[in-house]
Amino acid sequence: MNEADLLHFEDFRAGQIFRLGRHTLTAEEIIAFASEFDPQPQHTDPEAAKHSMLGGLAASGWHLGALAMRMMVDGLFIRATSMGAPGVDEIPWRKPVLVGDRIRLDGEVLDTRLSSPPDRGFVRFRFTMTRHEERRNGTLVMMFGWAVMFRRRVAV
Amino acid sequence: MNEADLLHFEDFRAGQIFRLGRHTLTAEEIIAFASEFDPQPQHTDPEAAKHSMLGGLAASGWHLGALAMRMMVDGLFIRATSMGAPGVDEIPWRKPVLVGDRIRLDGEVLDTRLSSPPDRGFVRFRFTMTRHEERRNGTLVMMFGWAVMFRRRVAV
Repeated sequence: MNEADLLHFEDFRAGQIFRLGRHTLTAEEIIAFASEFDPQPQHTDPEAAKHSMLGGLAASGWHLGALAMRMMVDGLFIRATSMGAPGVDEIPWRKPVLVGDRIRLDGEVLDTRLSSPPDRGFVRFRFTMTRHEERRNGTLVMMFGWAVMFRRRVAV
Repeated sequence: MNEADLLHFEDFRAGQIFRLGRHTLTAEEIIAFASEFDPQPQHTDPEAAKHSMLGGLAASGWHLGALAMRMMVDGLFIRATSMGAPGVDEIPWRKPVLVGDRIRLDGEVLDTRLSSPPDRGFVRFRFTMTRHEERRNGTLVMMFGWAVMFRRRVAV
């Protein structure tokens, strides 16, 4: 993709909505992530998980954050001049994501502002992950704000 | 481990410090995580990463969060009555972690408070990840607050 075709700071404005991706979680990937990073029974042991507060084998909250990142990269950053972010806002986990749940990530631009280095600016998003079961509306899984740096299109 | 030997809500108090673990990051694990969850050149391509803002192949911020979780589980939750957490506070990434950097996670109890369900309470921690190079003091990588639920020892 040519540099000119990438989304730059100037191409974002408040209210824009990006549909970033969908994904259905399998037991294998929930267990694989948790075995490496969050080895607790509700995330690694299907039998024990049935008796946990989450009601069944459920993805680690950190796994959901990582999956959100992947959907942001594939759905947006790959065609934009993203320069990373200095951190991520508070992430509330509202509902668990169980095996077979389909998740979806959307992003809305809240505001844009120039940064001190004149070649870049911050775009602040609200990312929303929802969970979709058969024949039901989406349920909020997590929602968080995130200010991401993008290069400017115009040399200044 | 017997239930009685686990750390319960009543066993935590403000000011307690937990040394949670150390880990040295390899290029292979940085690339493996990023290939799955954060496929951007600064995390997946050692050559391209040299020219990035991070100065070399660096772990994804989400990878650092996941590694912190693993150190919390191994260093604390595995011997405690952790019941999970409803979310995680804002996570600022202050400095990158490059290949070969040794990271360390410490946790300090900020406060404890009972929850509405009488069988549990919240323990709020400040977790601090530092990066250690040869013969230098630790550099702050990230620091974040987190309120985690623990079962109470006494039936009430």
